[in-house]
Amino acid sequence: MAIVLGDNEYGKAECRVVRVVRDTPRHEIRDLTVSTSLRGDFSAAHVVGDQSDVLPTDTQKNTVYAYAKQHALGEIEPYALALARHFVDDVEPVLGARVEVAQHAWDRITVDGRPHDHAFVQRGQEVRTAVVTVDGDSAWVVSGLTGLVVMKSTGSEFQGFLRDGYTTLPDTDDRIMATSLTCRWRYADADAAVDWRAAYDEIRATLLARYADVHSRALQQTLWEMGRAVLDVRPDIAEIRLTAPNIHHFEVDLARFGVESRGEVFHVADRPYGLIHTTAVRDDAPAAGPAWRTSASVS
Amino acid sequence: MAIVLGDNEYGKAECRVVRVVRDTPRHEIRDLTVSTSLRGDFSAAHVVGDQSDVLPTDTQKNTVYAYAKQHALGEIEPYALALARHFVDDVEPVLGARVEVAQHAWDRITVDGRPHDHAFVQRGQEVRTAVVTVDGDSAWVVSGLTGLVVMKSTGSEFQGFLRDGYTTLPDTDDRIMATSLTCRWRYADADAAVDWRAAYDEIRATLLARYADVHSRALQQTLWEMGRAVLDVRPDIAEIRLTAPNIHHFEVDLARFGVESRGEVFHVADRPYGLIHTTAVRDDAPAAGPAWRTSASVS
Amino acid sequence: MAIVLGDNEYGKAECRVVRVVRDTPRHEIRDLTVSTSLRGDFSAAHVVGDQSDVLPTDTQKNTVYAYAKQHALGEIEPYALALARHFVDDVEPVLGARVEVAQHAWDRITVDGRPHDHAFVQRGQEVRTAVVTVDGDSAWVVSGLTGLVVMKSTGSEFQGFLRDGYTTLPDTDDRIMATSLTCRWRYADADAAVDWRAAYDEIRATLLARYADVHSRALQQTLWEMGRAVLDVRPDIAEIRLTAPNIHHFEVDLARFGVESRGEVFHVADRPYGLIHTTAVRDDAPAAGPAWRTSASVS
Amino acid sequence: MAIVLGDNEYGKAECRVVRVVRDTPRHEIRDLTVSTSLRGDFSAAHVVGDQSDVLPTDTQKNTVYAYAKQHALGEIEPYALALARHFVDDVEPVLGARVEVAQHAWDRITVDGRPHDHAFVQRGQEVRTAVVTVDGDSAWVVSGLTGLVVMKSTGSEFQGFLRDGYTTLPDTDDRIMATSLTCRWRYADADAAVDWRAAYDEIRATLLARYADVHSRALQQTLWEMGRAVLDVRPDIAEIRLTAPNIHHFEVDLARFGVESRGEVFHVADRPYGLIHTTAVRDDAPAAGPAWRTSASVS
Repeated sequence: MAIVLGDNEYGKAECRVVRVVRDTPRHEIRDLTVSTSLRGDFSAAHVVGDQSDVLPTDTQKNTVYAYAKQHALGEIEPYALALARHFVDDVEPVLGARVEVAQHAWDRITVDGRPHDHAFVQRGQEVRTAVVTVDGDSAWVVSGLTGLVVMKSTGSEFQGFLRDGYTTLPDTDDRIMATSLTCRWRYADADAAVDWRAAYDEIRATLLARYADVHSRALQQTLWEMGRAVLDVRPDIAEIRLTAPNIHHFEVDLARFGVESRGEVFHVADRPYGLIHTTAVRDDAPAAGPAWRTSASVS
Repeated sequence: MAIVLGDNEYGKAECRVVRVVRDTPRHEIRDLTVSTSLRGDFSAAHVVGDQSDVLPTDTQKNTVYAYAKQHALGEIEPYALALARHFVDDVEPVLGARVEVAQHAWDRITVDGRPHDHAFVQRGQEVRTAVVTVDGDSAWVVSGLTGLVVMKSTGSEFQGFLRDGYTTLPDTDDRIMATSLTCRWRYADADAAVDWRAAYDEIRATLLARYADVHSRALQQTLWEMGRAVLDVRPDIAEIRLTAPNIHHFEVDLARFGVESRGEVFHVADRPYGLIHTTAVRDDAPAAGPAWRTSASVS
Repeated sequence: MAIVLGDNEYGKAECRVVRVVRDTPRHEIRDLTVSTSLRGDFSAAHVVGDQSDVLPTDTQKNTVYAYAKQHALGEIEPYALALARHFVDDVEPVLGARVEVAQHAWDRITVDGRPHDHAFVQRGQEVRTAVVTVDGDSAWVVSGLTGLVVMKSTGSEFQGFLRDGYTTLPDTDDRIMATSLTCRWRYADADAAVDWRAAYDEIRATLLARYADVHSRALQQTLWEMGRAVLDVRPDIAEIRLTAPNIHHFEVDLARFGVESRGEVFHVADRPYGLIHTTAVRDDAPAAGPAWRTSASVS
Repeated sequence: MAIVLGDNEYGKAECRVVRVVRDTPRHEIRDLTVSTSLRGDFSAAHVVGDQSDVLPTDTQKNTVYAYAKQHALGEIEPYALALARHFVDDVEPVLGARVEVAQHAWDRITVDGRPHDHAFVQRGQEVRTAVVTVDGDSAWVVSGLTGLVVMKSTGSEFQGFLRDGYTTLPDTDDRIMATSLTCRWRYADADAAVDWRAAYDEIRATLLARYADVHSRALQQTLWEMGRAVLDVRPDIAEIRLTAPNIHHFEVDLARFGVESRGEVFHVADRPYGLIHTTAVRDDAPAAGPAWRTSASVS
């Protein structure tokens, strides 16, 4: 019986990168948060403190910025793939790499009805994400979004559920359903010639449309229908995972104050909240990549 | 020499209120965070623990929700005015009240090109605010916004500044200027028949347009021009205060890695950050209301 | 009627400073967050964009670090005073300065029963604060603490309060009272030879002892008694301000599940929360300094 | 090729529970944040919206509170085990359960040198954690801590590392090493008669002592030595995982201002930060439990 080094990985988390494309007076900007993590045989660094196989996290940061010059013009998936493959292909001791990118959206400011050349306003808390894993010659691309906050003021019920001695919740046939959605969709082939932005736009629109249109019998059902619809429209997606806190809206009883109200005034609670994880997957989906510990901004 | 009770106030902070208007199948929603604070002679509560003049904060919360039924249909300013005047007019020991409202914006989800009747997506981190103060018969309305994040990728310089022995910053004639803007504008007359939403839209558009168009010699100058422009277009505004962190974007030196780059790749720092407060005011502006301690979500 | 520049100030917020005293093998550390803000006639910078009177916030940051070498060995009050006076005395256009310091506490790690020479563990979220304002030749020192989280499991009632048509809260003669305390105490004389650390320790102990020992008829009363006690023991303090959110603990009704429980199981709510501001002041206290906008980490 | 339901789980996240033991005048308190998550065959709930097998998250919350009466007196591990086994054993459709508990530490307030009977002060941001997973008849207990913030002002080097074309970091033989530690240790046998609190205390002391005493050649090495030491002293622990952000302290160059300083004044950066995951495991350790998605407060 010996004590051995188990799973380990290391990297640089949350590099805040802004890339400006200024080749013409009409600038473009990319606003990214990038995290890297590396795997390999780093036992010497742990056990005897020998760093000769360890590429510093400071170097990883520099590489993130250097690659932003060339790659951050385009979509985040090829940028993340290029970074991850660089670490695995060009740095001898590195056997696997994971790169996480969160893209913060900006719109042009409108002045006199025209979009401005170099002034921008941030769109909101929603971010587009990409998590790329490279393990030797294999690669996986998991794109996604997080912070998409949605609410339905009707079209949602929750009834007929299992009851036990601790159950006090009444059935309801009309409630508010709200959540802050996180989705991750895995492409079947990391090397396919995907139009990443068009895919993102189509998936986001599909998720929103299904959320809006499905009469919900539970948040689980809504998430399933949203995920299934994405797989329906995108044959290049192998699997989609949805994580959704149930942001509870409790109706306030105003009759106590002589105020008539039916489903009109709600208190929004912070904690606790329901938390639902659902996955839609093709039954012939290729296997997912190796598990990594959640490392940073993209969970 | 005696020890006496000084300034004091109390209230309920951050009531999270959602109001659904469901009179027709096309619902409307209002999503608000409301804080109340009261002043009066509450010395008995402090000094001898006699609560007979103290309206509980729980009651203030109930009132926030009850008033949301009738008032939250409209704009946040009359809702806050109604609440504040209720406390001062209807609750005997209350001499002054301050009500702060933050409104979180939602858009309808678009399905098949049409805005949905009852499904919504949150717009972002930007919130519209109103702070109403009532002191006896007098009232002040301070509207505003917070969390408006903007960036200019050029059109901003900072040079010719004062230098002393601790100065190392070089002059620059082209930098990124970014901030997360908080603005508060005080109406000259709280009882004027203002179209609050139109005023908000016009002021926000004016702020953004000036931010975009003014060639900036410093953040101070930009803020001043933004504020002055608002007073120019809105004669009903007596004063506008702007608070802006300078979100520093430091250019990364990529030449070290053989990568040519001029003003293209930046690291965004979190802390420290510059912090600028600027005020534009009419020289004949009526006096502002009494100072209250910042109490909650709307600072 | 003209539009004029009103109140304005600018500075560097949240410089994160660690100072190591390493003159002997037994190191000392100071961990500070420092914010500066300056006032003067900066109208040229605003109105015509002329920066020649503006000391950059980057320079203010450098000064914060440079002064940390000499002053951060000691207490935060003289460090803040030295910085604020430097800006006012040595930088011609600066007429007023405000310096805010938050000190994060660390303990030595204990190994084999002995405190370690150079390894430390952070004590917690509570921070000691100092806010120094200098206006020309005058100075004010306001020391304090924030994030002191306390709870009483009994010895707190709330009854006999004012009731109106929106009141539903029942009287209680035994509840949990919990808060996260922020206190600010102003010294009567900024130039007095105060033992700042001893004062802090005595005031903190007095606040905690009164919180614990006073049978509370309301949070207001408890805060008043805490503040008054501080003025009683510290003749050098002119005024003390206490801000306390009422962190509500709601008893869970377990009888519904056949579980007997009286005052034993509570749900802790996040929002909304009561929020109480109370001040104890000497009736012959010298006037407070000029009001500044809350600028950063020390509110 | 069909689309099928993949991994799914659901539960209630972040129930804030305070349990007061008031059988004598000397009260005890437990302050917990509890999250539950359930697995089973919930395909009907997803695919056809049939909730008859779904125990509501509201019921899970009620159960968390009800069990707090009996179990929250003791340590968090048996409380979490009891909850998880209840869901699996007593609720027919539930096949697996995961319960996460975070315990927030409080100390008694000292008055006149004596610990008070019912007044408490929160110790800090560090929390003790337990994550219990039950899968049918099997159970796993993973205890831990998070938010343990430590700093060494010397005794840490980083040199001899791998260099490539993006490397600019110089070697150093003396730097500040600081981190906010998260540890998770898995017990070999969930049913062993462990003195959970004594184990926690011993492990925490071991982690701190090794952190302090090991001369660090890299954060990886320090984490490995800390983990290995825990396995050395606790034969009942099968595996320990450590996650540590490298909180970078950059020395400020004061020579520019004529100030002599060697390793004395540092700027603390927020982002990016290094992030290291390390595991020490016995080579005959029993297998870990099934993977769950990180669901809430205990990651």
